[in-house]
Amino acid sequence: MADEALFQFLHNEVIQYVNSAESGDTENGRCVSKLENMGFRVGQGLVERFTKDTARFKDELDVMKFICKDFWTCVFKKQIDNLRTNHQGIYVLQDNKFRLLNQLSAGKQYLDHAPKYLAFTCGLVRGGLSNLGVKSIVTAEVSVMPACKFQVMIQKM
Amino acid sequence: MADEALFQFLHNEVIQYVNSAESGDTENGRCVSKLENMGFRVGQGLVERFTKDTARFKDELDVMKFICKDFWTCVFKKQIDNLRTNHQGIYVLQDNKFRLLNQLSAGKQYLDHAPKYLAFTCGLVRGGLSNLGVKSIVTAEVSVMPACKFQVMIQKM
Repeated sequence: MADEALFQFLHNEVIQYVNSAESGDTENGRCVSKLENMGFRVGQGLVERFTKDTARFKDELDVMKFICKDFWTCVFKKQIDNLRTNHQGIYVLQDNKFRLLNQLSAGKQYLDHAPKYLAFTCGLVRGGLSNLGVKSIVTAEVSVMPACKFQVMIQKM
Repeated sequence: MADEALFQFLHNEVIQYVNSAESGDTENGRCVSKLENMGFRVGQGLVERFTKDTARFKDELDVMKFICKDFWTCVFKKQIDNLRTNHQGIYVLQDNKFRLLNQLSAGKQYLDHAPKYLAFTCGLVRGGLSNLGVKSIVTAEVSVMPACKFQVMIQKM
């Protein structure tokens, strides 16, 4: 409970701060991209720690499963609820009760704020994958909070 | 291990970001005060969670012991190593291996950077105490990393 709370509170503070520091920007795009970048570096660092003693991954799907299970559990204390793929480099990770949206009211009027609360995590996944040799673009989408979907598009090198 | 890493990595990112966002300032004072403020609010939130089911504290010393033991363990995975007081409202909390300094080289040339790495925690303690009804000023001092001392001056109301 406590660790989660620490991360959640700090995450909220970071959003508030970045949002105010980048307030010159109308589109909120810069705020989101700063948060994404932070997530990227944190994701890189975390994966480095987590995989120190694990065996080499078999393939891309194996890497994605690691992200959905071990990685997600470490950060969010639960697994991804559903992983789907078109077997052509697109993966959709669905979390039915995403922890960082959990504190927001589910009302539609807050949907506009969702991107700020998802940007860090998009970066986290991208950074994690990147350090496992998988280059990707990660986006997120919310229809009804606190459920959300992360779409991972693998960039073939 | 993992939770700690998440907090540490995010904490580092926050320092980097705040430092660059407040770079107009020569003294670094604004960066430190922003970090302290973030810590304050996180500390308030954490104490609210932690003490939900605990008994009322006997006195000021009892509150300080809670900060040194339960609170510190939750955030830093260890207790404060030494608590001293002059019984007139000044408390010194010593951590001989402070986790957020652990990653910095102990060389003297990095001592200048220490305040940035301690500001969030000063705020954390001040915020925690504040929500327990104890108004205080918290400062930190390092002589040899990663050991450090937090001085808490209670403000009588």
